[in-house]
Amino acid sequence: MHSHSTADRTAGGAGDDGWRIRRTGADLDRLGETESVFALGNGWVGWRGNLDEGTPYGMPGSYLNGFHEQRELTYPEDGYAFPQRADTVVSAQNAALVRLWVTGPVDVRGSGGASDGEPLDLRTGTLHEHERVLDLRAGVVERRTDWSSPAGHRVRVSSTRLVSLPRRPVAAVRYVVEAVDTPVDVRVCADLLANERVPERSDDPRAASVIHDPLTAEARRADGLDGVLVHRTDRSGQRVATAVAHQVSAPAGFATEADFVPDRFRLAVTGRLRPGDRLELTRYAAYECAPVGGVSAAELADLVAAEAHAARAEGFPGLLAAQRAALDAAWATADVVLDGDPELQQAVRFAVFHLLQAGRPDGDRTIPAKGLTGNGYDGHVLWDTEGYVLPVLTYLAPEVARSALRWRHAHLPEARERAAELRLAGAAFPWRTIGGRECSGYWPAGSAGLHVNADIADAVLHYVAATGDREFLAGPGVDLLVETARLWHRFGHWSDDGAFHLHGVTGPDEYTALVDDNLFTNLMARRNLRGAADAAERHPEAAARLGVDAAEIAGWRAAGDAMFVPYDRKRGVHQQAAGFTEQPEWDFANTSSDEYPLLLHYPYLELYRRQVIKQADLVLAMLRCAGEFTAAEKARNFAYYAARTVRDSSLSAAPQAVLAAEVGHLDLAYDLFAETALQDLADLGDKSADGLHLASLAGAWLVVAQGFGGLRDDAGVLSFDPRLPRRLRRVAFSLRWRGHRLRVTLTPEGARYELPDAGPGDAVELWHHGERLQVTGDAAVTRPLPPLPDPGPEPPSPPGRRPARR
Amino acid sequence: MHSHSTADRTAGGAGDDGWRIRRTGADLDRLGETESVFALGNGWVGWRGNLDEGTPYGMPGSYLNGFHEQRELTYPEDGYAFPQRADTVVSAQNAALVRLWVTGPVDVRGSGGASDGEPLDLRTGTLHEHERVLDLRAGVVERRTDWSSPAGHRVRVSSTRLVSLPRRPVAAVRYVVEAVDTPVDVRVCADLLANERVPERSDDPRAASVIHDPLTAEARRADGLDGVLVHRTDRSGQRVATAVAHQVSAPAGFATEADFVPDRFRLAVTGRLRPGDRLELTRYAAYECAPVGGVSAAELADLVAAEAHAARAEGFPGLLAAQRAALDAAWATADVVLDGDPELQQAVRFAVFHLLQAGRPDGDRTIPAKGLTGNGYDGHVLWDTEGYVLPVLTYLAPEVARSALRWRHAHLPEARERAAELRLAGAAFPWRTIGGRECSGYWPAGSAGLHVNADIADAVLHYVAATGDREFLAGPGVDLLVETARLWHRFGHWSDDGAFHLHGVTGPDEYTALVDDNLFTNLMARRNLRGAADAAERHPEAAARLGVDAAEIAGWRAAGDAMFVPYDRKRGVHQQAAGFTEQPEWDFANTSSDEYPLLLHYPYLELYRRQVIKQADLVLAMLRCAGEFTAAEKARNFAYYAARTVRDSSLSAAPQAVLAAEVGHLDLAYDLFAETALQDLADLGDKSADGLHLASLAGAWLVVAQGFGGLRDDAGVLSFDPRLPRRLRRVAFSLRWRGHRLRVTLTPEGARYELPDAGPGDAVELWHHGERLQVTGDAAVTRPLPPLPDPGPEPPSPPGRRPARR
Repeated sequence: MHSHSTADRTAGGAGDDGWRIRRTGADLDRLGETESVFALGNGWVGWRGNLDEGTPYGMPGSYLNGFHEQRELTYPEDGYAFPQRADTVVSAQNAALVRLWVTGPVDVRGSGGASDGEPLDLRTGTLHEHERVLDLRAGVVERRTDWSSPAGHRVRVSSTRLVSLPRRPVAAVRYVVEAVDTPVDVRVCADLLANERVPERSDDPRAASVIHDPLTAEARRADGLDGVLVHRTDRSGQRVATAVAHQVSAPAGFATEADFVPDRFRLAVTGRLRPGDRLELTRYAAYECAPVGGVSAAELADLVAAEAHAARAEGFPGLLAAQRAALDAAWATADVVLDGDPELQQAVRFAVFHLLQAGRPDGDRTIPAKGLTGNGYDGHVLWDTEGYVLPVLTYLAPEVARSALRWRHAHLPEARERAAELRLAGAAFPWRTIGGRECSGYWPAGSAGLHVNADIADAVLHYVAATGDREFLAGPGVDLLVETARLWHRFGHWSDDGAFHLHGVTGPDEYTALVDDNLFTNLMARRNLRGAADAAERHPEAAARLGVDAAEIAGWRAAGDAMFVPYDRKRGVHQQAAGFTEQPEWDFANTSSDEYPLLLHYPYLELYRRQVIKQADLVLAMLRCAGEFTAAEKARNFAYYAARTVRDSSLSAAPQAVLAAEVGHLDLAYDLFAETALQDLADLGDKSADGLHLASLAGAWLVVAQGFGGLRDDAGVLSFDPRLPRRLRRVAFSLRWRGHRLRVTLTPEGARYELPDAGPGDAVELWHHGERLQVTGDAAVTRPLPPLPDPGPEPPSPPGRRPARR
Repeated sequence: MHSHSTADRTAGGAGDDGWRIRRTGADLDRLGETESVFALGNGWVGWRGNLDEGTPYGMPGSYLNGFHEQRELTYPEDGYAFPQRADTVVSAQNAALVRLWVTGPVDVRGSGGASDGEPLDLRTGTLHEHERVLDLRAGVVERRTDWSSPAGHRVRVSSTRLVSLPRRPVAAVRYVVEAVDTPVDVRVCADLLANERVPERSDDPRAASVIHDPLTAEARRADGLDGVLVHRTDRSGQRVATAVAHQVSAPAGFATEADFVPDRFRLAVTGRLRPGDRLELTRYAAYECAPVGGVSAAELADLVAAEAHAARAEGFPGLLAAQRAALDAAWATADVVLDGDPELQQAVRFAVFHLLQAGRPDGDRTIPAKGLTGNGYDGHVLWDTEGYVLPVLTYLAPEVARSALRWRHAHLPEARERAAELRLAGAAFPWRTIGGRECSGYWPAGSAGLHVNADIADAVLHYVAATGDREFLAGPGVDLLVETARLWHRFGHWSDDGAFHLHGVTGPDEYTALVDDNLFTNLMARRNLRGAADAAERHPEAAARLGVDAAEIAGWRAAGDAMFVPYDRKRGVHQQAAGFTEQPEWDFANTSSDEYPLLLHYPYLELYRRQVIKQADLVLAMLRCAGEFTAAEKARNFAYYAARTVRDSSLSAAPQAVLAAEVGHLDLAYDLFAETALQDLADLGDKSADGLHLASLAGAWLVVAQGFGGLRDDAGVLSFDPRLPRRLRRVAFSLRWRGHRLRVTLTPEGARYELPDAGPGDAVELWHHGERLQVTGDAAVTRPLPPLPDPGPEPPSPPGRRPARR
């Protein structure tokens, strides 16, 4: 019998400082979720946390950012401009596989004979110990296994994996095998495998579609113990090459052998281990991909082989040291301290770690909704990136935010084509995509979500405001702002009341669709129009290049100024969209707890017309466009919408938490904080197996900074209204602001603002609860936290939908 | 060279009295359209007007009402309650095929040798004459061909086809071949063929999907010259059997031979024809289908064989005579006289003929949108039936209307299941179906069109009002009324203003979707609720059976009375839906004529939010719920909506014509009348190849009776406000009203009302331009037509979209 110990999901005892995510036991029921949690990446290469031996798996995954195949979309009833193809993420060759077979000397039937022995497989034999640890400072996953085969041959195996942050194409694994009590014959096979089996698609419409055997072999190469495989995709026309280079340290008498079978290169190491012996195999893998029409297969093979060899030359200890150094530098800004709640301390570090490793500072790559941790949403980039992830990375790693915005800019041609196809103007960025073209197969909740345009524009404005990067603004920034603004100006219309309206769109909330004047969309479009006007005026040469004249700018300003803001005077609340508060209510009393998420139990026909909200929409508008609302409006709106928001989307908890904190409901804010922070570590949505929810993880940082820290930077003015949750003794976080690192520490005694890296002449101006402060490199500033005004009783959530109390 | 003469689409000279549709020449470019025009049917069997020889074809078609296969529906993004299977009409075995090969005595290479000779094919050889005539009184299609083969062998071929109105399962064809100037060796093959090739689906989303080889062979039988084929469908589980029985009359020396190959039974007749000789082959075909679990293959084969033999026993002249008698009886009520416009005289008779042959008076069969004339819309039944076709057939052939309503009643279980699935109450009838389940693959323009429920209820109420059929009301009628009303009561909601609202539905106009309070839907739902309340009160035992109590009835009445009616006070017009008149206008000035239909050139994102209307919606409400509007409102509404309706749907012209006539724009009404009447004869929408537009054809009768005759029967009160178009000297039509045939004749001298079949004591009460009249079997009544009030200038249509002027 093999043993299953329960997973240990909390930060644990004194020896564990909140920097390590540890799971013990085989935990076979949660394989998929564990693979996501233990995923490693560097914004270019992503390895899911699959077991070294590959099987059993929830879902294998070894991804390259942007590497994808396409599939046909067919519609029961097709329509004009319905996308006919969709990008789908597929794995590159899997270089993470190390399989082990064991036999005892007595049952070997001749060397290289018919029996390979018994494979290490957690489903068989006896598992004496099994532990995996994600070390958030070292940037590695370590695994220790103590296992006896069904025939009783016992081995200790440990592996260490990393995906190198400094070396973009490189990932590596060190695999160590020891015999425990008796000699064991072992065969260790390090595989490089293309077209690994992927489990079938589930019935859940939110899951990924699966393309089997997406890779066609183009070339292979062996050089001693090293190998290269080159494949291509048939429809997307991409070529992908992976090289593996090895180091083997083994007792005398071990044999090594490399061979190919179709779609697989294998290095096999075979020999006898006695107790005390140690077999160590280190694999250095390097990945590249390019359009088929670009670099040739041979050139790509040369390239990855050179990169793998360079990694081997640096050596595994060197890679580990460089990884640590890169993370130390990142954590200096990114670390969040939460004294008083070890579980959430760990969770928020876990969240930030995955954000840090999801993007790249160099080039023009973005971050898909699941990062490179799974194939959920087909690996697509959605508005999650600009709406949730970049608002964090702009503060923590602005180069990564810039890279992601450059990716949008690189796909401006496709967005312009899409706008023309939609009979609009400017650019219509895709609702979901990998390669830049719209891949949404349900337009009411896809192409109609035009707010993605404004989310991108907002991310540009925010990036420029936080960094002061005028060069970016003058180049890609102004292009993005102008072309997105042009869409709004064409799309909207003037009504008799003198207002500018945006009708027939879908806002963030996916339980309504095709509404008039979605408040979030209107306010974000207003910001987009004004931002484009400002940028075009500030950069007249760029404006001229884009054909912008004064009349066009005036048109944007007029539309932005006259943008309609739906408000219900009778109820004293803003409307999520025109008429929203007059829609029928949801019958919560007759909705059972097992009918959530509602979209799996009720038709859109019911959902769309009722006041039931999947995710923060108007509440998100109150966060992103904070200056458009008074404090009283925020309080009333928050209460009204909290009662109708079921949080069937993981995008909801974080903005709700921030607004709950702002309007004074700190306990509710804290419980919502826990929900967003634990989304994947506790698999709250039962969907983490498909990949991590990066927006939810980003939300954890946002709640700390914006909810507890009260951070806002509307119109480039940095302000804090800190509030310390009852549960916490200390909250600390940092952000980069115009070249400086600003550290904010909240304790019951007050808020401390400091610039730890700055020189004496450096200064940052900020506002603390309405007081203007100057923080300099010389002088940290501390101010007391004002007492919280009594916000009254907590607004009700829908029955059964309040977040769990902590 | 073969010759192409142009098609002759007008009623022609003095010899052609408007009862014959004649096409000459090969007309190969219009094959599909011609096949639809020359389609024959009897509401059970439908034969498209394919050439006897089968090829070339636009699309082969031999249909049985209700016989279908199913296909999987797959969605790029699936959703709750999205239908997973769709019914698709497929052909039964084709028994209409008679192929001819000719050779001269000199090129025969031995009898039965390798060469079959040259096939009669209009694409080869020389076509001296080719004529097809649909005789609307005889109920047959006659074809004459005078053709020389490429080698110069000349034959005259004539065929006569009928699908028997009195004999439900029977169709027949008589095929005659003569040599013209020299002896010719001929081989005539009468085929019975399953799984005939069907052309591929086009890109047009409105076209049918194609299932290849839908029939699986189960049994075959030969008996002398006669044969039977039995097949089944795999997914829908239906069994279909076709028998063919033959008579051959040939000169001496001819040989006959019957054989099978897979999926085909063939009777071959071979011999030499000398000038003056005549070969005559008559085929009698009989069709039945049944669920696979019902009648066995052998039993079904017995049944069809017996029916084919019985038809042969009656003989072709007997079938012709019975066909003529059935049509004489039908035309007595159904004929429409239009003196002054031979083209439209012919067109309206053509329209009525196709309506008459589309349905069956016996049983419980309905009429698909294309009848049995093509596979457009996958052969589905849509709301066209209750919305357009039954309003006519209730007057002309009420037994057929009853049969169609019984079909709805038979599928009440599926509609109840669907309502439960949609989390609603009562019954939710499908937007499109063959077998009774929802087959719509695009829910915003499918399942959201809940008005189909009210259309069915209205058809019940109208049928009962026109016939006085209390027995139907007490049985199926009350079931249909109650279950449809229950859906509205559950679906709607009360608002603070005390009104009852229906939000998030799609009305008739498919260029808007998911709107609040669609006026048509609301008024029809009001009628539905009140009709259910009345019926339940009148039939308490039926109400008790359905669990209806007084409180439920009171709820229906309250909802109906409080139903919200959207009205724009500022513009003084009703709104198609709440807020419609405040939506942005369509940019007609920048829409080119080749961008219609708009749905093929613009996304729904643009169409849905603008004031552009595909088809009559509010205007249809003014026809169907005439009493809900004042005359002044009708005039203002008509003008407002006429300017925004592009008529991209063939459902639009007829109701617009009726309302144009009512508000006094008779020239516009007449031009719209021509558009609906010529929809298929002139293939105005370029879509007639997929089958005839039965709703458009029904519209032709509706314009005569409701537009020119001013016929209304709101609340069971029969009224006429006749207006004679300038172009016409005389308009006459009849209708059945509570067991009587009422004939109405309009001339410049006045309107004459008579009961030609009634006895002296029989009477019908009606209103003529507000005057109450009693028409009895004794005494026709004539009243003058009042002068038309000046309605002012004709309201503009969208640029370029006014119907052609006659």
